[in-house]
Amino acid sequence: MDRRSEYYSAASRLTYVAHFFGLTALILILIWLLHYRGGLNYESNNPDLVFNVHPFLMFFSLIFLGGEAMMAYKTVRATHPVKKSVHMLVHLLAIVLAIVGICAAFKYHDMIYKEDVYSLHSWIGITTICMYCLQWVFGFFTFMFPRASVPTRNKFVPWHLCGGRALLYMAICAALTGLLEKSTFLQLSPHQHESRLLNFTGLAILLFGIFVDLSVALGYYTL
Amino acid sequence: MDRRSEYYSAASRLTYVAHFFGLTALILILIWLLHYRGGLNYESNNPDLVFNVHPFLMFFSLIFLGGEAMMAYKTVRATHPVKKSVHMLVHLLAIVLAIVGICAAFKYHDMIYKEDVYSLHSWIGITTICMYCLQWVFGFFTFMFPRASVPTRNKFVPWHLCGGRALLYMAICAALTGLLEKSTFLQLSPHQHESRLLNFTGLAILLFGIFVDLSVALGYYTL
Ligand code: HEM
Ligand code: HEM
Repeated sequence: MDRRSEYYSAASRLTYVAHFFGLTALILILIWLLHYRGGLNYESNNPDLVFNVHPFLMFFSLIFLGGEAMMAYKTVRATHPVKKSVHMLVHLLAIVLAIVGICAAFKYHDMIYKEDVYSLHSWIGITTICMYCLQWVFGFFTFMFPRASVPTRNKFVPWHLCGGRALLYMAICAALTGLLEKSTFLQLSPHQHESRLLNFTGLAILLFGIFVDLSVALGYYTL
Repeated sequence: MDRRSEYYSAASRLTYVAHFFGLTALILILIWLLHYRGGLNYESNNPDLVFNVHPFLMFFSLIFLGGEAMMAYKTVRATHPVKKSVHMLVHLLAIVLAIVGICAAFKYHDMIYKEDVYSLHSWIGITTICMYCLQWVFGFFTFMFPRASVPTRNKFVPWHLCGGRALLYMAICAALTGLLEKSTFLQLSPHQHESRLLNFTGLAILLFGIFVDLSVALGYYTL
């Protein structure tokens, strides 16, 4: 086996570790919202239930779906054009859900008459979603339709990869600052079960990102 | 110019952007600690001044020096063995300063009789510093002394690069969660100048990391 395919198969195995942490984070966040926070409902009259849609959708869209879309070239067993379409469509779904998730945060702020976009969390968040959309549009017109010429496409691949990775880590920074901010607003003491649960959720999100990154990047290095 | 050297020179230009954000973050953190927080002093009887050593040293060591060490292969104009030694020594300095920085946080907790390592921030922080030391030791024995054979060394390069990048982003997550936690403890309102300053500090730290990542990774992708 040559070095390239050795990395490739190591990278494929790392996707399993990534799935594991991704699912763990997903389950932890659902336990948090359903068991400790009374559930989530965009249409509720209770502002807290409207808010709860925000952390779930933001994690599920930009981080979980985004990460899975990044790994699609390794996890989907199909021809290259099919993998590419899956990659593109899952990212599109992520964008749609992320916009709903952001709307939930704005709706919550409206309901409790609080002003918008003052925190570090919201600054990182707004920047992330804007750049994510740009990255998608740029990728679509370069790699899907109307596709650029092969040399141009090849030229943009490293930028697309680096940009995608930066966005994943930005989304993770948004999620961690968001979790911390929420636990502050809730005035949780560090010894409550809920605080521990949130700590483990944050850690699982970070580890998901790191293993997605490893599994995507390893296959691309050559010496 | 072939594609490889094209990426390489783009990457070299990106190091300037990284320096810019790194220095911005450094200045902002110093303004925060000196102007708003009364300065920093490890030997003081005032626990707050002891604490202040922590954010400064942690950012300066693992993030600023660590990032500069990662970029040394592009910024230091010298032979490869010299670049490698600079890279290794700057990371070593970073580790030493980071250990002092962590000690400052523990000393502060001792002085105010508060228990240790309960927060998400401290969990991410402890993990980061431990893995950072492991990465250094592993790199030293693989690439410096007693160096492994060329094929073995080549084999470990992608792991070393991916690991280093993951550690940079982990340190950034630690710093952002730390800033947010501190602004909670200080009970800053989001409209104070100090809150805005901290938001901009966090953003500059994140942007520094992204540009370090871009400038390191771009040069390594080939298709
Ligand atoms: C990828 C992830 C995320 C992104 C891009 C994001 C983005 C945003 C944005 C743009 C706002 C501003 C809304 C407004 O000002 O009306 C916001 C608010 C908020 N988000 Fe997130 N968010 C993310 C994840 C999370 C998570 C996981 C939590 C955890 C509970 C969270 C908690 C909050 C809170 C408490 C607010 C209201 C206070 C504030 O504006 O800072 N967010 N988010
Ligand atoms: C790379 C960056 C950083 C690392 C690795 C790190 C690591 C740590 C560790 C291990 C502790 C636990 C000490 C104990 O429990 O006694 C701690 C505490 C603390 N750190 Fe950091 N830190 C970093 C940056 C920062 C920054 C930039 C701030 C901003 C102010 C900060 C604020 C705090 C605070 C408030 C505590 C005490 C509360 C707690 O344990 O969470 N840290 N840090």
